[in-house]
Amino acid sequence: MPYGELDQLAINTIRLLAVDATFNANSGHPGAPMGMAPIAHILFNKFMTFNPKNPDWVNRDRFVLSNGHGCMLQYALLHLFGYEVSMDALKHFRQVDSITPGHPEAHDTPGVEVTTGPLGQGFSNAVGLAVAQKHSAAVFNKDGYDLFTNYTYCFFGDGCAMEGIASEAASAAGHLQLGNLICVYDDNHISIDGDTACAFTEDVSKRFEAYGWHVIWVKEGDTDLDGMEKAIEECRKVTDKPSMIRLTTTIGFGSKLQGTHGVHGNPLKADDCKAVKAKFGFDPEKSFVVPQEVYDMYHKHAADGAAAEEEWNQLFEKYGESYPTEHADLKRRLTGVLPEGWQTKLPSYKPTDSAVASRKLSESVLEAIHEVIPELISGSADLTGSNNTRWKNAVDFQPPSTGLGDWSGRYMRYGVREHAMAAMMNGMASYGTVIPAGGTFLNFVSYASGAVRLSSLSHRRVIYVATHDSIGLGEDGPTHQPIETLAHFRALPNMMVWRPADGNECSAAYYMALTSKRTPSILALTRQNLPQLEGSTIEDAIKGGYVVLETPGAAVTLVSTGSEVAICLEAAKILKDQGKPARVVSMPCVEVFDAQPKDYRLTVIPDGVPSMSVEVMSTLGWEKYSHEQFGLNRFGASGPYKDVYKKFDFTPEGVVKRALATIDFYKDVKPLRSPVNRAFTNLI
Amino acid sequence: MPYGELDQLAINTIRLLAVDATFNANSGHPGAPMGMAPIAHILFNKFMTFNPKNPDWVNRDRFVLSNGHGCMLQYALLHLFGYEVSMDALKHFRQVDSITPGHPEAHDTPGVEVTTGPLGQGFSNAVGLAVAQKHSAAVFNKDGYDLFTNYTYCFFGDGCAMEGIASEAASAAGHLQLGNLICVYDDNHISIDGDTACAFTEDVSKRFEAYGWHVIWVKEGDTDLDGMEKAIEECRKVTDKPSMIRLTTTIGFGSKLQGTHGVHGNPLKADDCKAVKAKFGFDPEKSFVVPQEVYDMYHKHAADGAAAEEEWNQLFEKYGESYPTEHADLKRRLTGVLPEGWQTKLPSYKPTDSAVASRKLSESVLEAIHEVIPELISGSADLTGSNNTRWKNAVDFQPPSTGLGDWSGRYMRYGVREHAMAAMMNGMASYGTVIPAGGTFLNFVSYASGAVRLSSLSHRRVIYVATHDSIGLGEDGPTHQPIETLAHFRALPNMMVWRPADGNECSAAYYMALTSKRTPSILALTRQNLPQLEGSTIEDAIKGGYVVLETPGAAVTLVSTGSEVAICLEAAKILKDQGKPARVVSMPCVEVFDAQPKDYRLTVIPDGVPSMSVEVMSTLGWEKYSHEQFGLNRFGASGPYKDVYKKFDFTPEGVVKRALATIDFYKDVKPLRSPVNRAFTNLI
Repeated sequence: MPYGELDQLAINTIRLLAVDATFNANSGHPGAPMGMAPIAHILFNKFMTFNPKNPDWVNRDRFVLSNGHGCMLQYALLHLFGYEVSMDALKHFRQVDSITPGHPEAHDTPGVEVTTGPLGQGFSNAVGLAVAQKHSAAVFNKDGYDLFTNYTYCFFGDGCAMEGIASEAASAAGHLQLGNLICVYDDNHISIDGDTACAFTEDVSKRFEAYGWHVIWVKEGDTDLDGMEKAIEECRKVTDKPSMIRLTTTIGFGSKLQGTHGVHGNPLKADDCKAVKAKFGFDPEKSFVVPQEVYDMYHKHAADGAAAEEEWNQLFEKYGESYPTEHADLKRRLTGVLPEGWQTKLPSYKPTDSAVASRKLSESVLEAIHEVIPELISGSADLTGSNNTRWKNAVDFQPPSTGLGDWSGRYMRYGVREHAMAAMMNGMASYGTVIPAGGTFLNFVSYASGAVRLSSLSHRRVIYVATHDSIGLGEDGPTHQPIETLAHFRALPNMMVWRPADGNECSAAYYMALTSKRTPSILALTRQNLPQLEGSTIEDAIKGGYVVLETPGAAVTLVSTGSEVAICLEAAKILKDQGKPARVVSMPCVEVFDAQPKDYRLTVIPDGVPSMSVEVMSTLGWEKYSHEQFGLNRFGASGPYKDVYKKFDFTPEGVVKRALATIDFYKDVKPLRSPVNRAFTNLI
Repeated sequence: MPYGELDQLAINTIRLLAVDATFNANSGHPGAPMGMAPIAHILFNKFMTFNPKNPDWVNRDRFVLSNGHGCMLQYALLHLFGYEVSMDALKHFRQVDSITPGHPEAHDTPGVEVTTGPLGQGFSNAVGLAVAQKHSAAVFNKDGYDLFTNYTYCFFGDGCAMEGIASEAASAAGHLQLGNLICVYDDNHISIDGDTACAFTEDVSKRFEAYGWHVIWVKEGDTDLDGMEKAIEECRKVTDKPSMIRLTTTIGFGSKLQGTHGVHGNPLKADDCKAVKAKFGFDPEKSFVVPQEVYDMYHKHAADGAAAEEEWNQLFEKYGESYPTEHADLKRRLTGVLPEGWQTKLPSYKPTDSAVASRKLSESVLEAIHEVIPELISGSADLTGSNNTRWKNAVDFQPPSTGLGDWSGRYMRYGVREHAMAAMMNGMASYGTVIPAGGTFLNFVSYASGAVRLSSLSHRRVIYVATHDSIGLGEDGPTHQPIETLAHFRALPNMMVWRPADGNECSAAYYMALTSKRTPSILALTRQNLPQLEGSTIEDAIKGGYVVLETPGAAVTLVSTGSEVAICLEAAKILKDQGKPARVVSMPCVEVFDAQPKDYRLTVIPDGVPSMSVEVMSTLGWEKYSHEQFGLNRFGASGPYKDVYKKFDFTPEGVVKRALATIDFYKDVKPLRSPVNRAFTNLI
């Protein structure tokens, strides 16, 4: 069907909603929406299948706006197609407590799949969404039952194209032959510093071809509607490669400043707003105008989507008759709830069990639970043998043509791409049918911190398996030994940082990570062996902090995590001999401990007893749980780990020395309050 | 000269030193050194000019081992050529307090230029070294005085090639046409997960061509010594493009496990050690053997290097006669000391001066000092107009053919490449003639954290200009508003995190950042305007924390930073009216405050007065400087900044409410010690 006036009217309506909303907010980015309105119109109205009345329908086509600063494009589309994004919401663009924040946030706005804006993230999320789709199709589709057929579409700009995370994800997507992924590169030659000629002159198409992508160039992205349609059609036919459409557009199309960075990040001036409206045949004096015929066209498409969902629902019901197990499994997965009784598979340990590194304990958990939690997809950023993230009979998620696995495989080979791994996991978790867990060294979770932050902000159940968690990794030395890392992620809202001390605590960490549907987790795990503690239980550990050694009349409370808990227990023996009995608290997860009732927390860190934290990295933040802190506020050292621990005095004797100083220092303070007691609460 | 037996002997000597050192340490990576020994021999002995007796000679060729896990290759070379890396040091590879740590550390080992190991960093450092070389040559070279002629050589492996940071840096290097940069890609098809076929199947050569690089493939990297030599020669002739030699090698060449990941990260077994020695014609029973003729050959090359330096020194002396100003400037720069009196240019402010955003105050500093500190090179990751990092008459550092600047330019257009920017700055600072400062939003310094960490670990004077430092950025919303970021970097050893409250503090931050030769800095700066404070001075602020409002008989001390200090001063007025006088402390840099004498710190945060911190982000760590904390332990919100501050109660009234609670809570505690008082010190 040839494009006509109504299409142009719709495109200009989108453009002007972006003009009006940014002008109204006196803030925002009109340029990208004005430039990308044509492709958005074609994509949403010709190709995408979705039901605005049920944004959670699992087989909907996914759309990701990786250049998230252009979010008025997305908000305008959501509004026009009938999602619960009202005109009033558009008028409150970028205002406190609106559902139209400055960048798209998945948990805030119906129809927004992933949280974007930090550049490169959305693109990498899209790769993850496509991975989850491929996997779900392989697991659930049957002859005559193509339950999973959706595409993932992504828009990205020059900024995303420059970011390393997107390079990593693009390389991974090419390797994985994700034919269900179609990305549109808004080649408008403008970034904040002006013309991309000043910093970005590479051949992006050639680069994507080098990654193994199918690449098409549409040169007239402002006007060639047929060309855009044909390009998308062609991309959909290529099933063994992801596709990239290089779309040359004019940023801020229609504005007096079109084609310049003046229209990138600033609203149009009042006179320019009027001029562009006149140019597009709209009333220059009116704002937030949507011609009824535009609504009608888009609502018709939305109704088609609703019908498609209805058809899918019937197919799914029928599927249940032929494949009751798969049907039940998928239904359950979509609720986010794990299979009943799965937790009975979690390993538990007695003190007499042998000492094991917590990275190995984590492996045992994965080994024990992978069969009962089929939605769990593990993986590693090229550290499989070190992270111990792979269960024995795991199958790789790989294109079958590689001969290395298949699409139903549940083990991801992310390559040395930590940042993309994290963002891909955010995308995978967003799809709704899988729970991703991915490994790297704790120190290199920092490489991924841009995406880790978005796991938290967008409430995604993503599990970071972070081994080699301290100077205890030994010989690799300071370049690999985390010092600041736990403080960093403990300061991140909505993130659980777990540092288990033994096998029971490791099981507890997994229990909480897997059952917290809206919170990601980092599991900090050792390279070195840890004894199974007397006094640890899964039940206690899931409280985040608990008393692992209670001592009546204690002179001091030692508060510790992970590999240092056993050292504290040894120190407690010495302290007892010296007439200064100590209590020992294991605090595998401060965030979960914080969520316990105050009464409980005061039984763990009581009034009247001086306390000292012991953790072999930055002490920052431990003042919240202890009066004094023993840690490592410097970089580590390269050597066998026992030598390194000794160098820094992290021995029972080193702990005793400081515990005695702590006891002495606080003997005259009355009342000596537990640090759990605060003058006011910080939660708002 | 054709290659002969002595060359082969030297190559095998290098290989076996790596075999012995890793075996002896029972730890380390023999595979890469065994595979890359041939190219290393050719590069070091045929092409590189350096003087092992003076590793600091400024015109030396630079070598960067980006695949730093292969560091025994580098340590062996340094030893053989006569750097102060003894055979004993090789025997103490990966032992505590040796100068041969598990990955190369620039400050530990003579001849190691940059700290590598975290993958992709070294490659990006090399780009920075090449930038600094190009710039120094443009500034100092004169007709007949080619002072700066050195090349930067870099080895990198599949791991580096997969990392996004290296993609960013490679794209930047291509744009910048860095013909002085030659990188060798160790194309050995092996990473930790095994064959790269499992995750990394892109066409790396094509990708580098897409970036604008000159690419050569040497297919027989184990044996084709002539081919390697010719490749390097050819690369040296290409002056307008960086070069990449794809060198196909066999990892662990000579081992029974050659070509497998079994030889990547584990020492050879005892029998394999013997077998490989026998194979190479060495005594299987002896270890750490260096044939005298190998020493002789390499020491001869080292002597040539010493002679080259001597020649250079003479040239430089003569240069001093013709160009006394440039001569003096370069001599001074090499000491790392700034020009005398430069600090008199720092702007200072009176309380009556107008309110200004600290990003603008930072711009005023740059405007004021850029002429007196010619080694300062500013730049931004595509946020120039937002970071305010560019002085008015700045010239871009650009290839002249772009028409956008020239090689002497002092403004870097890094593109949207935060991670590469940071690592390039580490490389630039390592060169010895420039001080780099680079801008992005504070939230996106996190994208760069892998490299920021290495600024600290390797003691580089790098300045991060981090604007939009809080929810005060307003409309961009939670995706862009830092919460955890300051805690993260405050937990990083050897990093100064500055958050100035006004103009004088901003000048103090720059003073400390520029004069701390071995410590990087992050300057957290506001988007919103800040009033000039009564009571702030540059002299006080350079202590890191000081009393901005002293109040006799104070009931509470408010400890605050940046944009919240003025709110605290307003709160103090209200508190005074309520009969609860408050002291206000401004703490722009806790690390510098920590370094002050305890007596001073106790005058700032004295005993007997309850204290409360006020900073509009994570409270983590503030317990160290206050009894109670008012902060934001959740994500922010999108809206005009005043509305956002109000939403979270960051108003004078909000502070007062919590200050009163603090006063009340501590009224019964005796003695009420300042948090400055500790039971023991954590510094070891």
